[in-house]
Amino acid sequence: MTTDISADKSVFARRESQVRSYCRSFDAVFDRALGAELFDTEGNSYIDFLSGCSSLNYGHNDPDMKAALIAHITGDGIAHALDMYSSPKAEFLETFERLILAPRGMDHKVMMTGPTGTNAVEAAIKLARKVTGRSNVISFTNGFHGMTLGALSLTGNVSKRAGAGLPLGDVTHLPYEGSLGEDVDTLAMAEAMLDNGSSGIDAPAAFVLELVQGEGGLTAASRTWVEGIARLAKKHGAKLIVDDIQAGIGRAGSFFSFDEMDIEPDMIPMAKSLSGFGLPFALTLIKPELDVWTPAEHNGTFRGNTHAFVTAKIALEKFWSDDAFKDEITEKATVLTDGLQRIADMIPGARLKGRGMMQGVDVGSGGLAGAICAEAFVRGLIIETSGSEDEVVKVLAPLTTPMAQFKAGLDTLTDAASSCVETKIAAE
Amino acid sequence: MTTDISADKSVFARRESQVRSYCRSFDAVFDRALGAELFDTEGNSYIDFLSGCSSLNYGHNDPDMKAALIAHITGDGIAHALDMYSSPKAEFLETFERLILAPRGMDHKVMMTGPTGTNAVEAAIKLARKVTGRSNVISFTNGFHGMTLGALSLTGNVSKRAGAGLPLGDVTHLPYEGSLGEDVDTLAMAEAMLDNGSSGIDAPAAFVLELVQGEGGLTAASRTWVEGIARLAKKHGAKLIVDDIQAGIGRAGSFFSFDEMDIEPDMIPMAKSLSGFGLPFALTLIKPELDVWTPAEHNGTFRGNTHAFVTAKIALEKFWSDDAFKDEITEKATVLTDGLQRIADMIPGARLKGRGMMQGVDVGSGGLAGAICAEAFVRGLIIETSGSEDEVVKVLAPLTTPMAQFKAGLDTLTDAASSCVETKIAAE
Amino acid sequence: MTTDISADKSVFARRESQVRSYCRSFDAVFDRALGAELFDTEGNSYIDFLSGCSSLNYGHNDPDMKAALIAHITGDGIAHALDMYSSPKAEFLETFERLILAPRGMDHKVMMTGPTGTNAVEAAIKLARKVTGRSNVISFTNGFHGMTLGALSLTGNVSKRAGAGLPLGDVTHLPYEGSLGEDVDTLAMAEAMLDNGSSGIDAPAAFVLELVQGEGGLTAASRTWVEGIARLAKKHGAKLIVDDIQAGIGRAGSFFSFDEMDIEPDMIPMAKSLSGFGLPFALTLIKPELDVWTPAEHNGTFRGNTHAFVTAKIALEKFWSDDAFKDEITEKATVLTDGLQRIADMIPGARLKGRGMMQGVDVGSGGLAGAICAEAFVRGLIIETSGSEDEVVKVLAPLTTPMAQFKAGLDTLTDAASSCVETKIAAE
Amino acid sequence: MTTDISADKSVFARRESQVRSYCRSFDAVFDRALGAELFDTEGNSYIDFLSGCSSLNYGHNDPDMKAALIAHITGDGIAHALDMYSSPKAEFLETFERLILAPRGMDHKVMMTGPTGTNAVEAAIKLARKVTGRSNVISFTNGFHGMTLGALSLTGNVSKRAGAGLPLGDVTHLPYEGSLGEDVDTLAMAEAMLDNGSSGIDAPAAFVLELVQGEGGLTAASRTWVEGIARLAKKHGAKLIVDDIQAGIGRAGSFFSFDEMDIEPDMIPMAKSLSGFGLPFALTLIKPELDVWTPAEHNGTFRGNTHAFVTAKIALEKFWSDDAFKDEITEKATVLTDGLQRIADMIPGARLKGRGMMQGVDVGSGGLAGAICAEAFVRGLIIETSGSEDEVVKVLAPLTTPMAQFKAGLDTLTDAASSCVETKIAAE
Repeated sequence: MTTDISADKSVFARRESQVRSYCRSFDAVFDRALGAELFDTEGNSYIDFLSGCSSLNYGHNDPDMKAALIAHITGDGIAHALDMYSSPKAEFLETFERLILAPRGMDHKVMMTGPTGTNAVEAAIKLARKVTGRSNVISFTNGFHGMTLGALSLTGNVSKRAGAGLPLGDVTHLPYEGSLGEDVDTLAMAEAMLDNGSSGIDAPAAFVLELVQGEGGLTAASRTWVEGIARLAKKHGAKLIVDDIQAGIGRAGSFFSFDEMDIEPDMIPMAKSLSGFGLPFALTLIKPELDVWTPAEHNGTFRGNTHAFVTAKIALEKFWSDDAFKDEITEKATVLTDGLQRIADMIPGARLKGRGMMQGVDVGSGGLAGAICAEAFVRGLIIETSGSEDEVVKVLAPLTTPMAQFKAGLDTLTDAASSCVETKIAAE
Repeated sequence: MTTDISADKSVFARRESQVRSYCRSFDAVFDRALGAELFDTEGNSYIDFLSGCSSLNYGHNDPDMKAALIAHITGDGIAHALDMYSSPKAEFLETFERLILAPRGMDHKVMMTGPTGTNAVEAAIKLARKVTGRSNVISFTNGFHGMTLGALSLTGNVSKRAGAGLPLGDVTHLPYEGSLGEDVDTLAMAEAMLDNGSSGIDAPAAFVLELVQGEGGLTAASRTWVEGIARLAKKHGAKLIVDDIQAGIGRAGSFFSFDEMDIEPDMIPMAKSLSGFGLPFALTLIKPELDVWTPAEHNGTFRGNTHAFVTAKIALEKFWSDDAFKDEITEKATVLTDGLQRIADMIPGARLKGRGMMQGVDVGSGGLAGAICAEAFVRGLIIETSGSEDEVVKVLAPLTTPMAQFKAGLDTLTDAASSCVETKIAAE
Repeated sequence: MTTDISADKSVFARRESQVRSYCRSFDAVFDRALGAELFDTEGNSYIDFLSGCSSLNYGHNDPDMKAALIAHITGDGIAHALDMYSSPKAEFLETFERLILAPRGMDHKVMMTGPTGTNAVEAAIKLARKVTGRSNVISFTNGFHGMTLGALSLTGNVSKRAGAGLPLGDVTHLPYEGSLGEDVDTLAMAEAMLDNGSSGIDAPAAFVLELVQGEGGLTAASRTWVEGIARLAKKHGAKLIVDDIQAGIGRAGSFFSFDEMDIEPDMIPMAKSLSGFGLPFALTLIKPELDVWTPAEHNGTFRGNTHAFVTAKIALEKFWSDDAFKDEITEKATVLTDGLQRIADMIPGARLKGRGMMQGVDVGSGGLAGAICAEAFVRGLIIETSGSEDEVVKVLAPLTTPMAQFKAGLDTLTDAASSCVETKIAAE
Repeated sequence: MTTDISADKSVFARRESQVRSYCRSFDAVFDRALGAELFDTEGNSYIDFLSGCSSLNYGHNDPDMKAALIAHITGDGIAHALDMYSSPKAEFLETFERLILAPRGMDHKVMMTGPTGTNAVEAAIKLARKVTGRSNVISFTNGFHGMTLGALSLTGNVSKRAGAGLPLGDVTHLPYEGSLGEDVDTLAMAEAMLDNGSSGIDAPAAFVLELVQGEGGLTAASRTWVEGIARLAKKHGAKLIVDDIQAGIGRAGSFFSFDEMDIEPDMIPMAKSLSGFGLPFALTLIKPELDVWTPAEHNGTFRGNTHAFVTAKIALEKFWSDDAFKDEITEKATVLTDGLQRIADMIPGARLKGRGMMQGVDVGSGGLAGAICAEAFVRGLIIETSGSEDEVVKVLAPLTTPMAQFKAGLDTLTDAASSCVETKIAAE
């Protein structure tokens, strides 16, 4: 788009804060994107196995959403409406109700929060505290829930927490399934601590958890464990908040990450792929009996991004009107498991993580995982690590990636891994 | 856009959380918007004196931004790129540097935060605490800075604060200029308290303030007071954070609300009209010596909304390449003052508030202010109240409103006020 | 008592923590004490104008209390009884009721807290928060309420606060009368801030204040101001907690510091001179309707020091059965005022502080005040400074000091001040 | 002492706060006490198996301490000296150094805190936070550390915590050994959580623990576990704080509860039996390299209770000059174990808890434990329960109880238990 973009690259060093991050792994200036591919200003193309950290589950610039959005803008469709009633909001709500909530028998209300995941989480814990009159919230090891002060308190990453410059409180962090080793029953442990009136753990307003931990190393909790936590929450009068920001919208295999489980979350913060197009959009589903907000008690200028309503509606209709897309995810997930197993087989001690299209390989060290991702980028594949030590090579490809392209991406990843393993062996 | 939109209206009652708010004042379903006008699904048009709470300073669907955005989408320009380098980001940064920062001699770095004002504020106070090693932050009576836990702690509104369900700490609230009555020197008071080593007010990491309080009743601080606070911050080793989310981008009369003052804020959170098109977008300007973030220490999926980069660049070029727009604001502000004075003259005790295109009339009670706004809506004007008692009728018209339309809007407002005052007199 | 005490002095350097403090001002090893005099191990005597910071209002080793305590111990009277019923407790309670509470029409309950002032304060604020369901507590500039975490949060001294190693929260510090200069009406200011629903000051559970600030520079609040604060507390549903730990038990002129005012505190923490003999003892008086504690909800091993019950009862009977002692205090207070005025007259800008037998001279700087106290010590007078800059020479003589000795002490102080002033003039 | 004490009993109901507690279990007015016996005002005698919750380890009114205290008072020995140097303090420090610290090679400094355990704990955690610059402190399930805000945050009991009326923060509560069942390795769990950089558990300033949990059910941690915690603290740069307030001074079998373990605590809060006579007295031992307090940074009027110095010195000399007393405790502890085993044998599922002279029987329910203690009181034995459900019958007899009397007390307890068990069986 610019005639001499290389000259512009210096502007990042000159004017963008040091806090910038992904650009350090992927040293290119991206310009266009389509489906599962990104193109930089020098004309190089890349297969995208990152998908905006699961914000682009339907790929880049889906043609149907694109058309609808262009039509909306062309027709002077409203772009910003605070939380006034608008036709795009009505249509989104109606579609969401019809295709997502009603078929599952969910009677949740939709709360339009500020258009970021962290805001949707903040709204949920505020409401849980307000409703229960309790302050303590339970979250879990390796959980990631956002960066504003309330959500950051829930987040496990100690270096991110330190950014607050404040002690973060009012949260009890319990060990997630598997985080103390395979043999340790963390559910029993949580129950024992909560049942003990002298544990020092104050009665919780809520349990907040991801069912597959996106930033925390792609650990997927078992159905037994999740249902146990749900039961524990109920037993102690706490609300169950499933943070489906990264694992939802098909990423973990179905629309909600908990579709296959026998739980009914009280609140569900959603964001990332919700708009379908990568536009900022978030909401929190809340059980109607908890909907005791006074008007604007939680507000925000950009709650209800109208452009996102337009694309989100199309996304719901296109992908979730029947089971075809879900079946496609399932099929692709098998391919993914097989591909990752091939990589794991190269590396002693490596193990698969995650489920659905949210899988990765724990290669044992952040060093090796980082090297594999760097090598993959050289070979035209965008992919990142995950985990408290960045030890997991994480595949977050668009769910819509054509199978051939998906396999090609996996082959590139395998080659990159192979190359790194050989280099490592040579060095030892 | 839908054939039978009236049928859809029930979906809001059925599925949208009680927290929804503006829709209660403006009972219509909005569909299209252009310039300073909104159109509902029944074909009614409204003049917009709310502008998305100052998120639409350039009006709705500005044709140049619209064209650029459509071109970007049409060309499969990247829509979501996390914080990778992208050509739209480079162009935005270069334009912002060239038209805004460089002419003012500002060497600030641009931190792309999550695309909400509250996130930009959270980033600023995190950084102030990190840099200073101090926890206390000073904010002011009637200030509004957001709804996530850190920003909410800064916010003055006690009922909004109560929504946290937690005691909010680490903030000292001092009285804003004028909030203790015209005669009380709140600057001297702040200085006396901070100079006293036994005041109980711990050394502050930062002072956070709006120069015109958008939600707090449109109080505009004097140059003397603001410069005094800046001096006080420096004296006590605290960072000066000017929250220009609502008052900035021309609203208060110039690009930054402090352009006419002799201060150099250490950090400046910006949002609302930043994208120019009503798209979610926020950033925090930070002095380069404070830019000590580690990569991703504060992050967020939607930091750096690419569509917003596209429109924001056009907005900067179109409106801030020279002084013409600023002069236009100044002229319109005079008309606004005159119009509001006519209203104030009808109401004993009423007084003007604010400055630039961020002015209103304190009519003495929330009841009367609310009645005026409700009456204005019936007459086709969208306008809201402000202030701790909702006692100020607040005009936040698009800065681009054509003069005739602007005057027509003011006339409608005057008529509405007149009607309410007559009704009130009749009732007494 | 030891044959070679000088050898033992090294043990302090060797084994006592650096936190020790008064020993740095008074470099002697004290051994015996009687009335208003202290004797060191080398046989030197000192007049005591410090009285254990008002813990020895009846002087050292009062013969009647001494006799009763020896009798109690000799007869194997119980020394430690947790909070079981004991005859000394019954007798103390009956005496306190008969001589103190009943004559004033006070129906307060007596809560035996841990035997320190800070514990009595912690109990009071816990109860205020429990009763009101609110977290915020208001305290005042230059207030001192103790060193445990809850009480420290109330305390104004910023360097003492820093000792917490934590941000201290849940307290709003408002300016005490006079702390912003003589002309500023801090009561009106407090009222304006509390009446403003957007002040950021959450509804308070309690106001906590001293009527004469012992550590904060001997500022005595006026009756008007105190009654105004009491009214303000009632208006906002907050409990009024008068910390009478240092100013009570006759120090400010009558048994309670508020005896001459038209207020009824909801809670009154007491300690220091309560035992009469310098023994650790504290309690909190609470209005019966607030006495909603469950058994042991606040507890502590040494609550209800039995030896202290024995001496406290004697103290009450001996000094508070009629008005003679109060009259004596009044008379001595006049002598004190006169004496301090003589000192103030020597020093430009000096001014008297305090009331009753809790008076001092603000000499304008901590340097001069410290020099006067140091010089006084050389001359055999024990006296300390007060105030945020240690700028006040503070007289806290035993209320029982014989008049001749009291005047002698004041003469010594005058001589010390005169000497320091001359030195200072010579140096300039 | 009074002629008609029965008349006085009503004063408690009339004037003492509902918070009173032990008096509800032991409905008598106590008057005198000697050795292991208490006498009420009606002439009844009781064997004391409570010892002021371990504050009377040497029994009541030990004749040697009594004589020394009377001599001190008779000679007008100083009663209250703030933290000035005094001969009794010198003698206490010299004796404590000679008999306790030096023989153990401990170079700790002695910090005189306010004379309550909670204050000693508050001082320790303040210092740990100050020294490390960290806020988080780790404490353990069922731990009890006091009732002021900082210490209460460490305490496990949820109902006591609720008394704060505030969320209690800055503490992570981890499970104590055995609290998750015998099979769960809580040490490994703690290590796994602390080693995980995404556990959400911020780097700790300190670990605070009791080696035998006095209020928490007399659980005694194993040497392996304690040494593991000490190692873990060192590994993570945290200070090790052993709260020896209840378990120390011989109670758990030796002077310090950790004498038989290979650990060196950084800080040791002590109180309860420290004075030897039941007088309020507390201190915190701190490693010299941590003694970075500024003078009076933590202070308190009654720090360094002079009467307590006098008796504490005698106690140290009488009981800790050689191993005789320790051997006597060991012998008595065996008798205690045997006696409690007899009771446990009556009750299915009952099990012994604790060690040294700090043992009890977990009888499975608070109801039964309470009934046994109530029945024991009727039979002239004062004894209390412990544990989060009050399920442990806890023996805290004076360590000096003559063997015959001790056995008689145990027989009474056995009879009471037997009676209750029979009643229970009859009722089933």
